Amino acid sequence: MINRKLILSKRPIGIPKEDTWNLVEEELPDLKEGEILIENHYVSLDPAMRGWMNETRSYIKPIAIGDVMRAGTIGKVVDVKGKTIFKKGDFLSGWGGVQTHLISRGEGHYPIHAKKNNLPIYIGSLGMPGMTAYFGILEVGRIKKGDVVLISGAAGAVGSLVGQIAKIKGCKVIGIVGGEKKADYIVNELGFDGAIDYKKENVVKDIKRECPDGIDVYFDNVGGKILDNALIFLRMNARVVICGAISQYNNVKVEGPNNYLSLLVNRATMKGMVVFDYAHKYKDAMKEISKWIDQGKIISKEDIYYGIENFYQTFLRLFSGEKLGKLVLKIKK
Amino acid sequence: MINRKLILSKRPIGIPKEDTWNLVEEELPDLKEGEILIENHYVSLDPAMRGWMNETRSYIKPIAIGDVMRAGTIGKVVDVKGKTIFKKGDFLSGWGGVQTHLISRGEGHYPIHAKKNNLPIYIGSLGMPGMTAYFGILEVGRIKKGDVVLISGAAGAVGSLVGQIAKIKGCKVIGIVGGEKKADYIVNELGFDGAIDYKKENVVKDIKRECPDGIDVYFDNVGGKILDNALIFLRMNARVVICGAISQYNNVKVEGPNNYLSLLVNRATMKGMVVFDYAHKYKDAMKEISKWIDQGKIISKEDIYYGIENFYQTFLRLFSGEKLGKLVLKIKK
Repeated sequence: MINRKLILSKRPIGIPKEDTWNLVEEELPDLKEGEILIENHYVSLDPAMRGWMNETRSYIKPIAIGDVMRAGTIGKVVDVKGKTIFKKGDFLSGWGGVQTHLISRGEGHYPIHAKKNNLPIYIGSLGMPGMTAYFGILEVGRIKKGDVVLISGAAGAVGSLVGQIAKIKGCKVIGIVGGEKKADYIVNELGFDGAIDYKKENVVKDIKRECPDGIDVYFDNVGGKILDNALIFLRMNARVVICGAISQYNNVKVEGPNNYLSLLVNRATMKGMVVFDYAHKYKDAMKEISKWIDQGKIISKEDIYYGIENFYQTFLRLFSGEKLGKLVLKIKK
Repeated sequence: MINRKLILSKRPIGIPKEDTWNLVEEELPDLKEGEILIENHYVSLDPAMRGWMNETRSYIKPIAIGDVMRAGTIGKVVDVKGKTIFKKGDFLSGWGGVQTHLISRGEGHYPIHAKKNNLPIYIGSLGMPGMTAYFGILEVGRIKKGDVVLISGAAGAVGSLVGQIAKIKGCKVIGIVGGEKKADYIVNELGFDGAIDYKKENVVKDIKRECPDGIDVYFDNVGGKILDNALIFLRMNARVVICGAISQYNNVKVEGPNNYLSLLVNRATMKGMVVFDYAHKYKDAMKEISKWIDQGKIISKEDIYYGIENFYQTFLRLFSGEKLGKLVLKIKK
């Protein structure tokens, strides 16, 4: 059995170049007692992956040079040996990495009970992005009915869910996006109350227009200037959820929020979150998000590209913004 | 009766120049029924005063051009007319402003039961700085025994109290100060566990030395580079209390913390505070701080200068750092 795997070959500085990774083939050994062979079908592409490539102290170990590129995956058990915790034919979600196959004892994987045509949702709205959105806006953002919620990266996997959950909870929801198509999408398809196109408009002026009384919760996926602009509009006791900073991940020097003293003036809170802290409650969140999807209250969108050999070009879409919803690489034909 | 008062004559840009204010004399009218005449003895000089001079949205109205410079004061009732809430001879703490006398109905003032030789403590450890330290470290910082607490502006009115309260609560306390004299003061007189002289040393290296396992609470009075350095050392679930930013108050453009993503990595919270929110609990705090002072657990130090005509030179000490403890201007000979 041949495994095609994407190896991290060097630490990138700035935007990763193509030679950051190497696609190599290896012959997998025979299964040992208790092992399963997983065939990966879908690879999750997430902004956080850029952070894992840096050799800096973070919430998770850096990917080592020479290791398979870490990624969330949906795979299928295609072979087993002896007594195993999963059986042949099972679909699994887990940390399979950017590779076509892996041998495992099942660690870091859990079974999904999915129809074949909705598999990618398990790395989207029912996967890490879904969990991040759910716990980020509910537990860190602590939204309540009537709150004005502003979201950056609002057409992305996390942002689009954050906004829809906030709408369900009775908030006024404004999204910041790049491009007219995304602005149209979040308002007309997802039901946001307003959109700000940062590529076209003056973000400060537009937040003022869309949120004339200020904001109670700012959910930040992008960092940089947009975070700084949003801080101007904090209301008393506002909450700022620091979920990500995609505008900064490829910068050698991160740009901090100069308007942070708005936290003082408005007795506001800025809090960072990492979704793994909520692992013990994922099941409940998945159940509730599933219910909302079934009820038509949440639209879950995946933007799917094909071929492990196209990892690099697809990965760059995270930073160029050329995608809509959850970015997925399908690596099984 | 002649009142000498300091009028805000223009909005300063950067460090205020002497012509930002005008010292003028006015003849006060006769008291009307219910009015009292207060003779101000002590004027509180606080970093926050610089912010009140800007015409920007903040937690308190800007001082209007032509108005008396806002300041906390300790004064004495020297005349009354008819039925008044305070009587002749009462000492009052309040918002008397930088002026020798004022006519009032008592609003914004409360009586202090002090001996004459400890009056300034009512604008220091038992006044705004005391309340700020108390609620800032206990309610926003939420310290508990064993926490590592790092404080900037640690020899100042607020910082020196924050550190002593944290020591009482069983924390390890490190202070950042400017100059050897202050470093010596906080360790050898106030009992801090360590000091970092930012004027002399490399702050990052020194925090690492003094707090090798990181910090649980960072209490920030200064902002700028020191805040940025401190963020590097946050532990999981750390709290950053944004109390002030004296390094930035005279800047036209505030410099934000580039290392703010440490909040994400460490699930940390950065929260702004304004002492006025705790007004309903000042009495309890004053009682407890008084007790600690009586027990010798808290040393309260005022640095007193003389003469309303010396307001400007004294005020600048807030920003040059040439003071130790609470900066006070005595305006009654």
